[in-house]
Amino acid sequence: MSTFLAELVGTMCLILLGDGVVANVILKKTKGGNSGWIVITWGWACAVLIPAMIFGGISGAHFNPALTIALAAIGNFPWADVPMYIIAQMIGAMIGAALVWIQYLPHWAETEDQGTKLGVFCTGPAIRSYGANLISEIIGTFALVFFILGLGTVDMAPGLGTYIVGLVILSIGVSLGGTTGYAINPARDLGPRIAHAILPIAGKGDSDWSYAWVPVVGPIIGALLGAFFFAAIF
Amino acid sequence: MSTFLAELVGTMCLILLGDGVVANVILKKTKGGNSGWIVITWGWACAVLIPAMIFGGISGAHFNPALTIALAAIGNFPWADVPMYIIAQMIGAMIGAALVWIQYLPHWAETEDQGTKLGVFCTGPAIRSYGANLISEIIGTFALVFFILGLGTVDMAPGLGTYIVGLVILSIGVSLGGTTGYAINPARDLGPRIAHAILPIAGKGDSDWSYAWVPVVGPIIGALLGAFFFAAIF
Amino acid sequence: MSTFLAELVGTMCLILLGDGVVANVILKKTKGGNSGWIVITWGWACAVLIPAMIFGGISGAHFNPALTIALAAIGNFPWADVPMYIIAQMIGAMIGAALVWIQYLPHWAETEDQGTKLGVFCTGPAIRSYGANLISEIIGTFALVFFILGLGTVDMAPGLGTYIVGLVILSIGVSLGGTTGYAINPARDLGPRIAHAILPIAGKGDSDWSYAWVPVVGPIIGALLGAFFFAAIF
Amino acid sequence: MSTFLAELVGTMCLILLGDGVVANVILKKTKGGNSGWIVITWGWACAVLIPAMIFGGISGAHFNPALTIALAAIGNFPWADVPMYIIAQMIGAMIGAALVWIQYLPHWAETEDQGTKLGVFCTGPAIRSYGANLISEIIGTFALVFFILGLGTVDMAPGLGTYIVGLVILSIGVSLGGTTGYAINPARDLGPRIAHAILPIAGKGDSDWSYAWVPVVGPIIGALLGAFFFAAIF
Repeated sequence: MSTFLAELVGTMCLILLGDGVVANVILKKTKGGNSGWIVITWGWACAVLIPAMIFGGISGAHFNPALTIALAAIGNFPWADVPMYIIAQMIGAMIGAALVWIQYLPHWAETEDQGTKLGVFCTGPAIRSYGANLISEIIGTFALVFFILGLGTVDMAPGLGTYIVGLVILSIGVSLGGTTGYAINPARDLGPRIAHAILPIAGKGDSDWSYAWVPVVGPIIGALLGAFFFAAIF
Repeated sequence: MSTFLAELVGTMCLILLGDGVVANVILKKTKGGNSGWIVITWGWACAVLIPAMIFGGISGAHFNPALTIALAAIGNFPWADVPMYIIAQMIGAMIGAALVWIQYLPHWAETEDQGTKLGVFCTGPAIRSYGANLISEIIGTFALVFFILGLGTVDMAPGLGTYIVGLVILSIGVSLGGTTGYAINPARDLGPRIAHAILPIAGKGDSDWSYAWVPVVGPIIGALLGAFFFAAIF
Repeated sequence: MSTFLAELVGTMCLILLGDGVVANVILKKTKGGNSGWIVITWGWACAVLIPAMIFGGISGAHFNPALTIALAAIGNFPWADVPMYIIAQMIGAMIGAALVWIQYLPHWAETEDQGTKLGVFCTGPAIRSYGANLISEIIGTFALVFFILGLGTVDMAPGLGTYIVGLVILSIGVSLGGTTGYAINPARDLGPRIAHAILPIAGKGDSDWSYAWVPVVGPIIGALLGAFFFAAIF
Repeated sequence: MSTFLAELVGTMCLILLGDGVVANVILKKTKGGNSGWIVITWGWACAVLIPAMIFGGISGAHFNPALTIALAAIGNFPWADVPMYIIAQMIGAMIGAALVWIQYLPHWAETEDQGTKLGVFCTGPAIRSYGANLISEIIGTFALVFFILGLGTVDMAPGLGTYIVGLVILSIGVSLGGTTGYAINPARDLGPRIAHAILPIAGKGDSDWSYAWVPVVGPIIGALLGAFFFAAIF
């Protein structure tokens, strides 16, 4: 399998499982309705760790343009491959979002609130304040990249490190995700947002493009800072 | 131990623990009453991973006719053994369901709603729409089989892979299970449904046979697609 | 360290952590008040796995007279050591229960309901029906012992097996514990019940001795059946 | 990297993630608002295990003056390094607390209750009773140190032991944390309390200095007792 395909399919799985858990928790008449933040955060943890296990040995399992860029910035990944990785991640994210739309097909019409429907696909701030929201995404992605790189220095039983990366996602979700919904990944947010704009979702509203730059710019800044901090102290 | 016995006892354990957690959460006057989706999904995750650990080395721990068929279809399992495996799985599932009935014996009469009682045994759709429900089961089982096969390609510390399969079940539950209750396994649904029809459960209603084909056909289609997709890209 | 001390201290830790989580969830004015079955079941899972990790290599980490007897019955443990193990387990359980009383000292007077206070120490049935309650404890302990013995046949990375035993406790709690509160261990129930009778707990009621035989007899029967079933099929 | 920097950055991560999860659960208008004790306890478990994984090989990942002192007391750590470790831990804890303040910046003004705001930073008793609160912190930290030292004697697959230490934190939180909020670490409580006193938090109240000695003195006593108990029986 090519690294392109691994990143595409892996990011597709990430969004299918990640946006899927949000759909289950916030759409109307689902079996997991209102089951709360513990379900959402475990859902995203598994959404990362399962494809990371499967595709880690092939592409490194970035699934995240901010991580790809940050790794390139500290010399751990070739710049020449960055555009190809990002394209794969964006395509995968859009396909994954479309699959979530299909998976929960009868539930869109049952859910009146347009913001809720958008919330399945992409993130939005708990309190809208672009500066603060940007800082939140920067800190969250700083933590993500610093932890991933830090864990990479540790000798662990085969596969255990990837499980711990899943717990990093759980941790960022429960601890840092309360403000903006922890995009911490431009593809995770922008890909499904584009899918939301394109797909014929029953009773959908606008895709909140005014906010869309925050979960793109914030994660890239945070990832770069996290990678440079790692490179500086390790 | 024969593979027949391993599949039978393993599937019995799967349903005892899996239907058991549903009983605990939805029947009346239980100690885990209304404890929600996080309990149900962790319950099914453990229900799979514990017998999968114990019987994996003997029979491969399928516990699922759709998985057995899909593995045969891509040449990873002999077609000649498929009927024997499915018979073992169906018998095990029925015995497991009967044990859940016994385990929660005083609680059936306390629970008025007949649909709740049926819901302990087998799945039902959140919104009844056969086409959409079928697609949901197809996508869920596609994910199940693709992930299991994908994880099988990864070098992991002994036993860790099976634990991660448990997290796959957790993940499918929280992320994709909100629509139909993630049967993703014909034996898991049909076996207990037959048990529900046969057992003298206090105040039971009908066994909703009109829906019964969905969690049989959907998982088989999904498992085949997942296995072929795996074979195509790996 | 002697095996006696390992069983004593291990069982003390088990009850400190296990009864502790119940205190946190059901006593009044605690920080974890009403946090539900998911907290109780994870609490008991950790309550078993942590001392099992620490003392497993010394005494086998039974912490449970039913398990000790069952292992002796199938020839995996010397009958001569059974009384000494059970004495250690009972003493440890009583000390652990006393520590929980001290840990939550100001909360006993704040909790009016006497049944709640007893419920921190020992189990009680959701629906009182001695026959059904006995069967519930038999099935739960059958599962416990069969799973522990079954997992013991599997090659796992060092320490992982004990972690999975913790998930067995989680699983039995969420799936089978809804009826009687899953004593599945005579020392876990009788030791703290005696402590409840002895300790000067503020505003305590009786210790429900009429039920006390169920979580002693049921687990012993279930453990024996589980061990014989294991011996028969493996 | 120096051990000083490892302790400083590790403790910073601990408090960023640990105080972060409290902020998410108890501040107003967050996405994880009112998600309960299961989220808080998993949050602190990950808050410990992630930096413990990353920095364990460098500094031993104490992140806790009580643990550092206790290890020195039983001869497992040089007394000469104790002051330097504690300084690093305190600085790291204060920086981590400041980062949580920044991460949740718009939420402070939205949260009226001053006690809630303080509760993000440091612990407070469920029922104020200095003697009982002190005993609670002693027992909790006794368990922490005894379990960590006990687990250190066990042969486990690389990395697994640190994961189990994370579950020790989960366990202490769910089982023993209901009384005082399980500081079990002077730096975890005093560092953020100082940060609370210094930072210009919108609408903050006092820093409850009258209680501040409890989560300093209690953990040190408990850690010493836990270490001596370990040394006595192992």
